[in-house]
Amino acid sequence: MTWTPADSLAAMRTAAPLVHCITNYVAMNYAANVLLAAGASPAMVHTPEEAGDFAAIAAALTVNIGTLSPHWVEGMSRAIAGARAAGRPWVLDPVAHFATPYRQEVTRRLVAEAPTVIRGNASEILALGGEGSAGKGVDAGDPVEAAEAAARRLAHETGAVVAVTGEVDFVTDGDRGARIAGGSPLMPLVTATGCALTALTGAFLATGPDPFRATAAALAMFAAAGDRAGHAAQGPGSFAPAFLDALHALSPADLNAAPVDMS
Amino acid sequence: MTWTPADSLAAMRTAAPLVHCITNYVAMNYAANVLLAAGASPAMVHTPEEAGDFAAIAAALTVNIGTLSPHWVEGMSRAIAGARAAGRPWVLDPVAHFATPYRQEVTRRLVAEAPTVIRGNASEILALGGEGSAGKGVDAGDPVEAAEAAARRLAHETGAVVAVTGEVDFVTDGDRGARIAGGSPLMPLVTATGCALTALTGAFLATGPDPFRATAAALAMFAAAGDRAGHAAQGPGSFAPAFLDALHALSPADLNAAPVDMS
Amino acid sequence: MTWTPADSLAAMRTAAPLVHCITNYVAMNYAANVLLAAGASPAMVHTPEEAGDFAAIAAALTVNIGTLSPHWVEGMSRAIAGARAAGRPWVLDPVAHFATPYRQEVTRRLVAEAPTVIRGNASEILALGGEGSAGKGVDAGDPVEAAEAAARRLAHETGAVVAVTGEVDFVTDGDRGARIAGGSPLMPLVTATGCALTALTGAFLATGPDPFRATAAALAMFAAAGDRAGHAAQGPGSFAPAFLDALHALSPADLNAAPVDMS
Repeated sequence: MTWTPADSLAAMRTAAPLVHCITNYVAMNYAANVLLAAGASPAMVHTPEEAGDFAAIAAALTVNIGTLSPHWVEGMSRAIAGARAAGRPWVLDPVAHFATPYRQEVTRRLVAEAPTVIRGNASEILALGGEGSAGKGVDAGDPVEAAEAAARRLAHETGAVVAVTGEVDFVTDGDRGARIAGGSPLMPLVTATGCALTALTGAFLATGPDPFRATAAALAMFAAAGDRAGHAAQGPGSFAPAFLDALHALSPADLNAAPVDMS
Repeated sequence: MTWTPADSLAAMRTAAPLVHCITNYVAMNYAANVLLAAGASPAMVHTPEEAGDFAAIAAALTVNIGTLSPHWVEGMSRAIAGARAAGRPWVLDPVAHFATPYRQEVTRRLVAEAPTVIRGNASEILALGGEGSAGKGVDAGDPVEAAEAAARRLAHETGAVVAVTGEVDFVTDGDRGARIAGGSPLMPLVTATGCALTALTGAFLATGPDPFRATAAALAMFAAAGDRAGHAAQGPGSFAPAFLDALHALSPADLNAAPVDMS
Repeated sequence: MTWTPADSLAAMRTAAPLVHCITNYVAMNYAANVLLAAGASPAMVHTPEEAGDFAAIAAALTVNIGTLSPHWVEGMSRAIAGARAAGRPWVLDPVAHFATPYRQEVTRRLVAEAPTVIRGNASEILALGGEGSAGKGVDAGDPVEAAEAAARRLAHETGAVVAVTGEVDFVTDGDRGARIAGGSPLMPLVTATGCALTALTGAFLATGPDPFRATAAALAMFAAAGDRAGHAAQGPGSFAPAFLDALHALSPADLNAAPVDMS
């Protein structure tokens, strides 16, 4: 019997992992609710005085630079050091990293800290792979397919699993690749959707030794819940609560039919 | 054919402007979701290291002092300088500026930086116009009508369009004035409603050369969506998602009947 | 006629008290919406430059250490000093205080500042009372009953009313005790539920001279609204808006039947 995302979801629900999130102010509440609804336990802890200590207690760390500042970047560094020393996986979400020189420089340093997974939209991954992108702010200006080659290259260069999320997600460890369909056109109209997916990826990293499969499973759960919520919602406002309800209601069996295309 | 708010909404939807928001921690998520639902693209960027660079990329800047601190005020100053140097409009939201000496002093400096629009509740605009107000915290203690004269005077003194929002909104550039009815009595029971309107005003400022019309259009869209959501909601909790749904569903044609009373 | 939570709710609605909250980034929006829906007026003000001034204007102060940092801790100290000098009650919410040495040290200093009420989950109150707990992150790992003795001892030691919240809440001033049933199993799946209850407790402290009754009334209102919302919701996502609707709809009469068991 081969692995499916259902196995990872079952393992994640059993572990109910404590996920240490350093994320932006916009995303914090939504990301925490996504983790709780999915079955994990979130904790937002950022200050340098304790971020390293806390990372060692948690099962995984996620770092998102959406609303960065020097004090927070110092906290990120301490948390990453703590996570690495304790052998914990960590996820980098380089929000709009190309937008300003400051953001570029911080991202360069974070990428050098050996993230287990890098998750971004197509514009972010293209720019991180050294290619031109149509991105300007935090919203993607490029389709996922355009970033597949950049994602594979970035995975090879950094050793990280790279996830490019959009209409059909793509995840790769450089060699293996998977495409995950699903979701809803309303998802890009809810702020912090990508940031919340980064947090959920952290939860799945606690499920086993293979970050490629863990990431694919997180994307599959997100897409399946998004599809369900899209049918229940009247617009982006009612989508968010419906999405949390769907994450909570999803069972591993619901992921057996998840359209994960491995290649 | 004369201008109506419908024209501005059509132009805003076409431009889908990137709006740089420096707003308070309470409002960030809601303001971003309001912008996305309405058709714009939000970005929250505050640190002095990049706020000036980012303001030049965005189509408009909005500054809200709700949860201010020296680090953020420095970021606001850099962002305003960046926006002005790039010829971008900016909106000031002087939340409870009369409440403490620190807040008063910061507001004095921000008003001197030539905001394109100042939006506040009646208590805030009265106090900014040098008159006594019944305001104490962030909620208005005065009716909009009581602040009309102060708003006109403030517009003349500062060169800004001034919007006083409440049961019936009032907007003026000192000479022209408009009253916008609509909305719902549930709106003051949802936190950050005014802050989100400030963000939406930023989006409309990208629609044309007349900030008075742009602001009136933002208020008209907000009031029309609020009216719709008020009829769909069971209380303040269900109002917020219904409001985002309504912003998303509103078409320019829906604003043709907007009760904007120009005078 | 004896006191019931209904009396406190009626008094709180009449006073519509301004509650000064210094809370974590995750909770801010939800806590503000809980206060507005319940009938109070929230204000989030944290910077040392104004936190002391603002505390003297407000009717009560609440301090939550969820996402603490030195700058915020300094603001908490100034706010507490301002509140105490003005004779205002204040509530301490020591989120996951046992998790790191930094958090432990800050909590020790805050507890020494004579909080009127301390509210936490069972793991937090057990650890604060010097006992071992099963808590790791922000979610409770212990049942409320296990913390009753620690709560009474902590109340005696500090002079504070101590509230332990969970499936059935317990509140004590050291001598008197009350158990409050109700709520919904969905509540722990909504982030910042406890933080929002801390804010609501601040609102009720403005209702009369007895912080034990005020706290019991806040817990009773929260439990009653939670019970109602639990029946209306499909999951944790739809619970949050339903809960705010229920807080808004609850009348004092609805609390007459509140299962408050005094002992």
